[in-house]
Amino acid sequence: MGLIVLLTDFGLEDGFAGVLKGVIYSINPSAKIVDLSHNINSFDILEGALVLKAHYRYFPKGTVFVVIIDPGVGTERLPIVVKTENYYFVAPDNGVLSLALENEKIEKIVKIENRELLLNRDNETFHGRDIFSPVGAYLSKGFPIDKVGTEIKNIKELYFPKPVEEEDYLIGEIIKFDKFGNGITNIDYLPKFEYIEVKGQRIKKVCRAFLEGEKGNINIIKGSFGFYEIFTPVDSVRNKFGLKLGEKIKVRRRK
Amino acid sequence: MGLIVLLTDFGLEDGFAGVLKGVIYSINPSAKIVDLSHNINSFDILEGALVLKAHYRYFPKGTVFVVIIDPGVGTERLPIVVKTENYYFVAPDNGVLSLALENEKIEKIVKIENRELLLNRDNETFHGRDIFSPVGAYLSKGFPIDKVGTEIKNIKELYFPKPVEEEDYLIGEIIKFDKFGNGITNIDYLPKFEYIEVKGQRIKKVCRAFLEGEKGNINIIKGSFGFYEIFTPVDSVRNKFGLKLGEKIKVRRRK
Amino acid sequence: MGLIVLLTDFGLEDGFAGVLKGVIYSINPSAKIVDLSHNINSFDILEGALVLKAHYRYFPKGTVFVVIIDPGVGTERLPIVVKTENYYFVAPDNGVLSLALENEKIEKIVKIENRELLLNRDNETFHGRDIFSPVGAYLSKGFPIDKVGTEIKNIKELYFPKPVEEEDYLIGEIIKFDKFGNGITNIDYLPKFEYIEVKGQRIKKVCRAFLEGEKGNINIIKGSFGFYEIFTPVDSVRNKFGLKLGEKIKVRRRK
Repeated sequence: MGLIVLLTDFGLEDGFAGVLKGVIYSINPSAKIVDLSHNINSFDILEGALVLKAHYRYFPKGTVFVVIIDPGVGTERLPIVVKTENYYFVAPDNGVLSLALENEKIEKIVKIENRELLLNRDNETFHGRDIFSPVGAYLSKGFPIDKVGTEIKNIKELYFPKPVEEEDYLIGEIIKFDKFGNGITNIDYLPKFEYIEVKGQRIKKVCRAFLEGEKGNINIIKGSFGFYEIFTPVDSVRNKFGLKLGEKIKVRRRK
Repeated sequence: MGLIVLLTDFGLEDGFAGVLKGVIYSINPSAKIVDLSHNINSFDILEGALVLKAHYRYFPKGTVFVVIIDPGVGTERLPIVVKTENYYFVAPDNGVLSLALENEKIEKIVKIENRELLLNRDNETFHGRDIFSPVGAYLSKGFPIDKVGTEIKNIKELYFPKPVEEEDYLIGEIIKFDKFGNGITNIDYLPKFEYIEVKGQRIKKVCRAFLEGEKGNINIIKGSFGFYEIFTPVDSVRNKFGLKLGEKIKVRRRK
Repeated sequence: MGLIVLLTDFGLEDGFAGVLKGVIYSINPSAKIVDLSHNINSFDILEGALVLKAHYRYFPKGTVFVVIIDPGVGTERLPIVVKTENYYFVAPDNGVLSLALENEKIEKIVKIENRELLLNRDNETFHGRDIFSPVGAYLSKGFPIDKVGTEIKNIKELYFPKPVEEEDYLIGEIIKFDKFGNGITNIDYLPKFEYIEVKGQRIKKVCRAFLEGEKGNINIIKGSFGFYEIFTPVDSVRNKFGLKLGEKIKVRRRK
């Protein structure tokens, strides 16, 4: 049905996100467009990758994702399209797709070269408008990926800060806060544990609903980003405990 | 036409609002989706109720409202659907619908039970995605409410802080600030008055347009939330006078 | 295809932007609606005019722009429609359209008078909902502009702070910051120059891509607002150098 999902760090104040839709509707008037987020922290490829990974699989087969977190706009990093069994992803080749693609069967990767698809441009400040959106729009109406550009074999991997495995501990960290102030960690699998220590507090159990947590304290739950996250019920654990990105999560293994 | 209106406290940074649309379009590809707001203060049922009440009646008959301000997600509070003469409302049963429903003729209330409509889920952190959105999507394409679940008779009422009636005064308070810094009060009816006192200032008349107000001072007008609101022309009364939620509005009755 | 673009200072928290879509879909159920921005600074006509000018021409011919930055709502300023060769613009006559219209061939201007198109209203606080949106919706489905109201000949011009021409210098200033912290200036043409001085730093060249700039320093580029803008690569020049609106940009002419 021509569904295009936009994910950018453009913000919502300047019209940078809105203008993409002007470009898309000019090419495919029957497209449907969803804003996944435009409020990714500026230049934050990891956060963009996390948000894409969390949500992309809830969209219908055939959806075209246009992902523009692009600190290197106008430099030698390639603009690419990745076709998987289920989706198209249009993005700069800077790692922003790599978490989502871990679970997708890749069928083809091309670098965008076909200048007939692109807007004319005087300078290199806004490839979201001039390159990524129009290519997404053409793909959404069935334009063949083979004519977008030549095939390449690999894409850039994101640097992802994996938890550290020690004999007595698994040591993770907070890699993102969400709107509620919950702290998303880099831990997606928990070994059997005695306790989990964050900011001096010891957590003894994993909750299955936020209100199961202890009021006013630090608790842990498997959240919708696919990682364990730290929270305080009906409160912001971030503000309440002054947590920062990189805060350590120490999981004491049970012997 | 399959119009679905979303109202949540999910914010716009994490993709929590965007993913709802993936779920909806997967079920009803021809739905139209409107974001009423995703920036309700986290867990603030009263603010959600106020925003819904202010605006719902401007949407076409048949619109499905999916309202997710849900601090009790995953606990015993019921997920419900309310069918009125004009609309469907899908929400947790926590009072968030009660201000809007004061003016609607309720035809039926059901608790959501039909598991075939829902997404499979591993835990109980995201009923917006797994329960409320899919039910809204099915209703938007004509799925009968009778098959959503069994009928219940009552819904939970919101605690709404009504103005206090005294012999000489009607005493209201500010219950919300809007984007312009205007202070929305809990007063929707004014008796004949000598003056209205806020933060030591006395207001003598009710304005009909913001620019009728006195520059630099506190003024009052009936606003689009259906309540009287405090404002300063082309300025933020909130910032200018350091107003807080709960600030008293004293209406001195005229004898 | 009935495309309507909304540009307002209503914010995204209160439902003020969302309710416009209820009004529009009630009148034209097959409209497509794009949010260009709802986060213009409250009452900031210049910022609204800049955002409209930057982006409007990327939308398809026939698009109806509904632009509501309206500090004078409910006063004698006129609600108008401007028809150009390519577009319709619906707005208060306060200058918010004038930058965009510099490049458009105006065919007709009318003041909105036809009360049959408008919503009934008790007071004058929300012309966006009661006047501008419904008129935009009718225009989007082909309602003739001649029946909207009587023709007028001129619209109000925006006060735009032009750069100052001196013998040795061209002196511009920062008129807006974008989401990335870049400082958009009022300079859209650069003479031959020795250097450009901002906050004591001297810039020697104009970049064509952000990453061409010197890390940690102040650089200049022609940006997507159509003006030169000040930036620091992968950083916020605004925060890094404590820049404010009105900050001077001194271009030393080359003799």
